[in-house]
Amino acid sequence: MPSDLRPYVGAHIVDGKSLSLDIQREVAEGVSALNERGVEVRLAVVIAGDDPASHVYVRNKERACERCGILSTRIDMPSTSNLEEMIEVVEQLNSDPSIHGILVQSPAPDGVNELAIASSILPQKDVDGFHPINLGRLVQGDSMGLLPCTPSGVMRMLDSSDVRLEGSRAVVLGRSRIVGMPMALMLAQKGSDATVTIVHSRTSEIESICSEADILVAAVGSAHMVGPQWVKPGAFVVDVGISRIEGGLAGDVAPEVSEIAGWVTPVPGGVGPMTIAMLMKNTLSATEMQTT
Amino acid sequence: MPSDLRPYVGAHIVDGKSLSLDIQREVAEGVSALNERGVEVRLAVVIAGDDPASHVYVRNKERACERCGILSTRIDMPSTSNLEEMIEVVEQLNSDPSIHGILVQSPAPDGVNELAIASSILPQKDVDGFHPINLGRLVQGDSMGLLPCTPSGVMRMLDSSDVRLEGSRAVVLGRSRIVGMPMALMLAQKGSDATVTIVHSRTSEIESICSEADILVAAVGSAHMVGPQWVKPGAFVVDVGISRIEGGLAGDVAPEVSEIAGWVTPVPGGVGPMTIAMLMKNTLSATEMQTT
Repeated sequence: MPSDLRPYVGAHIVDGKSLSLDIQREVAEGVSALNERGVEVRLAVVIAGDDPASHVYVRNKERACERCGILSTRIDMPSTSNLEEMIEVVEQLNSDPSIHGILVQSPAPDGVNELAIASSILPQKDVDGFHPINLGRLVQGDSMGLLPCTPSGVMRMLDSSDVRLEGSRAVVLGRSRIVGMPMALMLAQKGSDATVTIVHSRTSEIESICSEADILVAAVGSAHMVGPQWVKPGAFVVDVGISRIEGGLAGDVAPEVSEIAGWVTPVPGGVGPMTIAMLMKNTLSATEMQTT
Repeated sequence: MPSDLRPYVGAHIVDGKSLSLDIQREVAEGVSALNERGVEVRLAVVIAGDDPASHVYVRNKERACERCGILSTRIDMPSTSNLEEMIEVVEQLNSDPSIHGILVQSPAPDGVNELAIASSILPQKDVDGFHPINLGRLVQGDSMGLLPCTPSGVMRMLDSSDVRLEGSRAVVLGRSRIVGMPMALMLAQKGSDATVTIVHSRTSEIESICSEADILVAAVGSAHMVGPQWVKPGAFVVDVGISRIEGGLAGDVAPEVSEIAGWVTPVPGGVGPMTIAMLMKNTLSATEMQTT
């Protein structure tokens, strides 16, 4: 072995699957405690149409419910459902006291406004955290409400890795209402204290901005967009994106990034399972709020 | 005159007062149109206690109402009012169809939770834009709701100055729920398209981050904190802060910044009058929403 070759030490791969199971165990304990008081915890999942990926997601959520002792009710609707029909179903679930959490699987059928659906769910049953009142609490710096599952899963990953947020530079790539924007608010809020930059498709010099980040959260859905030259050596790189490419699934982060980053979350097995864990946690919290 | 001295060309001082009056004239036209349909526009202002500055702010708002043809109802409450008493007053105003906008002057009496008051106002009458549901719409990228007046006033100042936001770097100094956080969301959202960094008291190297900003919004309330070395030559500097110092009022931006910036908003006469103009605009919008 030539002397200039040394064993390669790559990024630490954050095991989202294992951390997700830890959280689900905690949730299961909380559910047991409610069960002992005679309270059953129930999540309703509404799915319209037969998109195969959506059905996989829903099955994964149902399985997580089983692991946590959460009962689930699945409402299948035709792909031809319109907004009124979907809101009618949501309203029945809103007024059903045996249902504590309501989730409408995305994407909604063509032409159905997802914002309108999110606003129709009772805020205290909104376990996806997409209702504007739950998003607004986040702007207020109040993190006691039901928060969007993906960014709160990312916060939990950072926390479990003992990454120092205070004084760090964080860059959030993407500005969606369900990941990018709430992620930026969570990282910037008091107690987290990162200095946060939101970058997006209209940003100039995106690569150089990303390369200054101690924490880089990529949430655009563009396969392998984030190359190694985008990443500061040692940075914590969170890969939220998921795209279908030849040969399988790809995140927003190119594989070679693990040669320069300090931590990388894998796809699959990173943010995805964390999102489901936080959904379970929200369902438990929602039930506790409704029954005490 | 020695040849190396040339006439000094400083920053353009953005005339918030004059722009505010332009907006109030537009609002007055909208109010006239409603009056012709038999609709009167009425704002209720609740003020508790006798803080002199608060009373000045309320009088300025009442005067703006007069200019716009908006009727105002002022509810004076004692400084000893508690949360329940204040919410009771808000609820009476919520259910009064002759009132279209409700504003509770800050600060609330000691021990009264301002977040709870903001949440008690009907969202469609929330002309300050502080209700979580109105803040949450902003996270969703929906800017059709009632938006917080100060950041929307700043957006209007940028717009009137023909500053190009797309591709620009914007830095928001401060992360309050009523200015910093909504300001960051507005600058980053689709259509505005700035690349936004939120910096705050826990940020490292704050000066160097600010000095990269094409648009710098200072909203901390610390007199003259932003010195010329914080500012990129030619930048648009928005001064939201207002502090009382010996000899009068001071913004967050030091006077010498006008020697390096391209635009500066003055204190007083900058963001302050714009905030009032946007309050008038929100009151008109709220009335239109409630009466059509």
